[in-house]
Amino acid sequence: MRILVVNVNTTATITESIGEQAAGVAAPGTEIVPLTPSFGAESVEGNYESYLAAVAVMEAVRAYPEPFDAVIQAGYGEHGREGLQELLDVPVVDITEAAASTAQFVGRSYSVVTSLDRTVPLIEDRLSAAGLSDRCASVRASGMAVLDLDRDPAAAVDAIAEQAVRAVEDDRAEVICLGCGGMSGLAERVVERTGVPVVDGVTAAVTIAESLVRLGLTTSKVRTYAPPRPKKMTNWPPRP
Amino acid sequence: MRILVVNVNTTATITESIGEQAAGVAAPGTEIVPLTPSFGAESVEGNYESYLAAVAVMEAVRAYPEPFDAVIQAGYGEHGREGLQELLDVPVVDITEAAASTAQFVGRSYSVVTSLDRTVPLIEDRLSAAGLSDRCASVRASGMAVLDLDRDPAAAVDAIAEQAVRAVEDDRAEVICLGCGGMSGLAERVVERTGVPVVDGVTAAVTIAESLVRLGLTTSKVRTYAPPRPKKMTNWPPRP
Amino acid sequence: MRILVVNVNTTATITESIGEQAAGVAAPGTEIVPLTPSFGAESVEGNYESYLAAVAVMEAVRAYPEPFDAVIQAGYGEHGREGLQELLDVPVVDITEAAASTAQFVGRSYSVVTSLDRTVPLIEDRLSAAGLSDRCASVRASGMAVLDLDRDPAAAVDAIAEQAVRAVEDDRAEVICLGCGGMSGLAERVVERTGVPVVDGVTAAVTIAESLVRLGLTTSKVRTYAPPRPKKMTNWPPRP
Amino acid sequence: MRILVVNVNTTATITESIGEQAAGVAAPGTEIVPLTPSFGAESVEGNYESYLAAVAVMEAVRAYPEPFDAVIQAGYGEHGREGLQELLDVPVVDITEAAASTAQFVGRSYSVVTSLDRTVPLIEDRLSAAGLSDRCASVRASGMAVLDLDRDPAAAVDAIAEQAVRAVEDDRAEVICLGCGGMSGLAERVVERTGVPVVDGVTAAVTIAESLVRLGLTTSKVRTYAPPRPKKMTNWPPRP
Amino acid sequence: MRILVVNVNTTATITESIGEQAAGVAAPGTEIVPLTPSFGAESVEGNYESYLAAVAVMEAVRAYPEPFDAVIQAGYGEHGREGLQELLDVPVVDITEAAASTAQFVGRSYSVVTSLDRTVPLIEDRLSAAGLSDRCASVRASGMAVLDLDRDPAAAVDAIAEQAVRAVEDDRAEVICLGCGGMSGLAERVVERTGVPVVDGVTAAVTIAESLVRLGLTTSKVRTYAPPRPKKMTNWPPRP
Amino acid sequence: MRILVVNVNTTATITESIGEQAAGVAAPGTEIVPLTPSFGAESVEGNYESYLAAVAVMEAVRAYPEPFDAVIQAGYGEHGREGLQELLDVPVVDITEAAASTAQFVGRSYSVVTSLDRTVPLIEDRLSAAGLSDRCASVRASGMAVLDLDRDPAAAVDAIAEQAVRAVEDDRAEVICLGCGGMSGLAERVVERTGVPVVDGVTAAVTIAESLVRLGLTTSKVRTYAPPRPKKMTNWPPRP
Repeated sequence: MRILVVNVNTTATITESIGEQAAGVAAPGTEIVPLTPSFGAESVEGNYESYLAAVAVMEAVRAYPEPFDAVIQAGYGEHGREGLQELLDVPVVDITEAAASTAQFVGRSYSVVTSLDRTVPLIEDRLSAAGLSDRCASVRASGMAVLDLDRDPAAAVDAIAEQAVRAVEDDRAEVICLGCGGMSGLAERVVERTGVPVVDGVTAAVTIAESLVRLGLTTSKVRTYAPPRPKKMTNWPPRP
Repeated sequence: MRILVVNVNTTATITESIGEQAAGVAAPGTEIVPLTPSFGAESVEGNYESYLAAVAVMEAVRAYPEPFDAVIQAGYGEHGREGLQELLDVPVVDITEAAASTAQFVGRSYSVVTSLDRTVPLIEDRLSAAGLSDRCASVRASGMAVLDLDRDPAAAVDAIAEQAVRAVEDDRAEVICLGCGGMSGLAERVVERTGVPVVDGVTAAVTIAESLVRLGLTTSKVRTYAPPRPKKMTNWPPRP
Repeated sequence: MRILVVNVNTTATITESIGEQAAGVAAPGTEIVPLTPSFGAESVEGNYESYLAAVAVMEAVRAYPEPFDAVIQAGYGEHGREGLQELLDVPVVDITEAAASTAQFVGRSYSVVTSLDRTVPLIEDRLSAAGLSDRCASVRASGMAVLDLDRDPAAAVDAIAEQAVRAVEDDRAEVICLGCGGMSGLAERVVERTGVPVVDGVTAAVTIAESLVRLGLTTSKVRTYAPPRPKKMTNWPPRP
Repeated sequence: MRILVVNVNTTATITESIGEQAAGVAAPGTEIVPLTPSFGAESVEGNYESYLAAVAVMEAVRAYPEPFDAVIQAGYGEHGREGLQELLDVPVVDITEAAASTAQFVGRSYSVVTSLDRTVPLIEDRLSAAGLSDRCASVRASGMAVLDLDRDPAAAVDAIAEQAVRAVEDDRAEVICLGCGGMSGLAERVVERTGVPVVDGVTAAVTIAESLVRLGLTTSKVRTYAPPRPKKMTNWPPRP
Repeated sequence: MRILVVNVNTTATITESIGEQAAGVAAPGTEIVPLTPSFGAESVEGNYESYLAAVAVMEAVRAYPEPFDAVIQAGYGEHGREGLQELLDVPVVDITEAAASTAQFVGRSYSVVTSLDRTVPLIEDRLSAAGLSDRCASVRASGMAVLDLDRDPAAAVDAIAEQAVRAVEDDRAEVICLGCGGMSGLAERVVERTGVPVVDGVTAAVTIAESLVRLGLTTSKVRTYAPPRPKKMTNWPPRP
Repeated sequence: MRILVVNVNTTATITESIGEQAAGVAAPGTEIVPLTPSFGAESVEGNYESYLAAVAVMEAVRAYPEPFDAVIQAGYGEHGREGLQELLDVPVVDITEAAASTAQFVGRSYSVVTSLDRTVPLIEDRLSAAGLSDRCASVRASGMAVLDLDRDPAAAVDAIAEQAVRAVEDDRAEVICLGCGGMSGLAERVVERTGVPVVDGVTAAVTIAESLVRLGLTTSKVRTYAPPRPKKMTNWPPRP
């Protein structure tokens, strides 16, 4: 099967890194196709950029010319999953939801450790909208901007691990979710520092997407995610 | 003061009608400026169109060349208000939230009567994200598409009033919110049919925007709605 | 239009101060009428005094001989708004609810800073009953009794600002509501100390009452706030 | 021990009937003292009357000249219990809460069947404020006014039983609470009609008050129910 | 009347101590029968042991040869009450629920202080399942294992009182529940240290069980607690 | 990898059928080992039987002599998953939770259709305890006992499909979960009748268990699911 893994920002190196993470866990026979949106911000750390990313991801998927079996939206706390579900029949998996849903199977409560403080509310809102906040102990910010994660991985691990330890001790989290697509690859070191399971959203999403395909499940079209009605569109999609 | 009232779809006659409603309730000295987005769908009735409308509204506001004191996003259940709040210091009022917030002052519970069944979840999610769902008795669909409201106003009133009566009798609503920007103007006739107060989001939003300005309140910039960080943007905004 | 602004305690200087705040924000053509109850406590800081204030406010309004367009109950966390809504057709606005409802338009979450610790539960219960607690980050006490606010305004500002700063930093509030009618007038100085918007309930309530009147909305009489049924009353109202 | 059972309305025959119910279940050695407030409405069926009853009950208890061990507030959904708790050290038991708390021990969920539709919201709010609404399946109105319960007991049983049956079948209630002090005495006949346990608030409250006294428990004075602070009171209590 | 008080562990001295506590508060004419399960763990401090205790308690009650009027399950946070309710018509009272329900009558919020940290989630889940968590301020662990409570009572009181004080000051609890059957007997000393009412689950349960019997209430059999359907059982109950 | 799939009842034909379903979806290289408990009821339809099943499943897993990589508890709404998680390091997946978690990825809300009405509360409680009830539209009973599903499959499909259709139309479910291990195999026919995705818990659980193993995740041992402390056990496990 073929799974599109769509970055929410326009930084190609992040797309590449996400793609590698995804491929690393994919089952034999699964082809991972990483996509970068053709417009938007170099990193997504707020509502304006996130709404823009939502439509950019949708257009990137619509523009993809080959058939595919599932889509992963690889932005943590980002908007837009519901729109993709209207456009497609195949399963759409948001990595925020994939991580939380997976974490709940290996502990009674989980915390998310994300990048900047300002993205905490977006993640909280996404978890709440998805019905996954009951067992969320906290969403904590490491203070590392998305693009800094790559520039100084050692500092990133330190900052993330510190918040993870506080989540376990103070907020009573039993599992940690890495709350940023760009954190893929740090899981092992955070496990060492906290002693609890650490879930990465991208790899979790790959196994969930594969599972949904194997179970023959597609998005329900009965109401919320029915295809858009035929309509006159003005000046959209944008001319390249 | 000057208030921008931004339609979420590209149908100019709806913008005009919304603008008239807004102007009808505006205080002396308030200038209402209706805006139509330069791209998007002719009506917004689902997630894909709504996410697109979110960015179209933001770009319409960014492109407006004159100073203004507040913005009203005139789409019921639509995405995007949080993005506008990042971009602006002046108050931003979403009509879904304005109607609910106003309704709560004149009754113990309220229901929303909207256009199509598929938009019910969007409105429920918007109310929930805004912390306004505790006193929401129900969100009901009249079955009228947005563009049909104008084509057959008599049928629209009938369909809306029928659901409003059921909301009062079956769901125990004490106030009705008209859940669609295009329903502005039908309030009086729904009052006659139900005997309960009926709130229109556009006019409610005008009084709230004016109030916030008079109270000297602007959007808090301390966390969630801090301005976007300086970033490299690719291919955005779209070339006209 | 004429708006009655009813103090919940019997201290005339507080009534006067509330009336001045209200008048300061009222629109041209709005007449503010401050009222003091004819019985009750000199300040309201608990349930016994609050229930008593509830009936004292109702009797003060019933005794007012002229027509009026709206009523503001100027007690923070006080009981009784629902009773006034039964007695009247015109809008009734509680300042606790007015402040919270207004705060939600300019930030994702708000905290209330009130007088004594013992009044915190009353405010929490009022917000919860009104469906306004989802976005409430915390209710904090400054430790200043109501009558001390006037006696030592500088100490009051310090005590309130300290709790406001903690609300923003520790509880993640993005807006502060001043949780006591007697705090009207301190808003500006708390803004300076916290950097976030500060909402005063009395002035917020004036704009909301005016808005409801302009929108032609009156209290729903369909169920909860239907007029009291005709009944034999014993020894009530009390002889003056 | 001596328990005051305070009616919330001024109808002496109801006080008498409540007192008999209470005495019927009281343990040997418990003296039941029924009290009627000296002011207020002949029956309480709404917010205005209920707030008035709150203060009337408090004054009735304050005026009682002998020592006592506990107080029962015998109004269903009525305001005021928190005020009594401030004034007294001995336990105060509200019959709404007593019935719900008792019902939860004999079934997974309970419904309340009350008098008029307009009192439903008061009961819902009381249960919610007391933390007892999670297991409440519904609050239903029989349509019988309080004073009609006595005038036509057969019709009352029919109307109440009909709603009780619907609560069990449609709302999945497993226990029924009789939601009106005046319904004391109908329990047995409602059991016959529904086949589920039926809880009367007055008798439930007597056993709870006795239990709290036997356990040596008194109201916590640490915060919410601390005694009122010393204050100047104006024109209160009312001259007889 | 006769009340069975069933320990959840197999330590006879704890059964004895629980029985004494129960007998100390029982009304004249109430016979307390303490029972020890015939299989299971010497103390219950986790899910595996708790599920085992659930069936052990049920078998202990089934094996009891004489008639009885009510059953108390004397394990804090333990599983199984719902199963007993299916097997019996007479009231079944869980001490976790008895303590919480009683605490709510004497304070606005309560905290539980239990033995080990690992039992906190069990108690939280039990309170939540019983609809008693709204007014729960916190569940705190003293760090004392069940069997250590007896071995070093002075240290136990210190450890429990320390957490109780923090619950009152930091979590705003107004009542403390002693969260372990083995803590019966420590209440008085915790009252001295905290100044708030302290509820012991075993004694609270005795008064509730007696009350339910006096009120003539038995477990509702309409749905959740209907008797088990006739079935083929394999290898159960275990041969002694 | 090897996955144990444990039936909760003692009927071997159901174990066999569950095992076949599991094997049908398992990835190449996954060995499915179906287990039947050595004691308990022939079908589990209530709390008593469910608590007994909980310990029977735990003993069945403890008695299994070979290594394994994950365990699936194949009872819908049954107790016990938390106990298994204490006993094991490898992932434990409950089919109730697996189905709900999977359903949430393909629709905004889901309903469960189960066997008898009396099992509805167990399923509701399990979903609530697992943090999966926010998006649950309803749990409905088909009225078919577990052992009847096999005896008259055509009637079973009819009864289940009828409730499924009502869930979609009346409760606004967008996905259906088959709420009984014995319903495995009916999914396709319910899809035909409802037009929405249908999730079977057993197959969903297999893909989740495989995913957790592939992701290298094991149960968090930091608090709730720490291994049982060393203890003296009396008369357990039962002699065969």
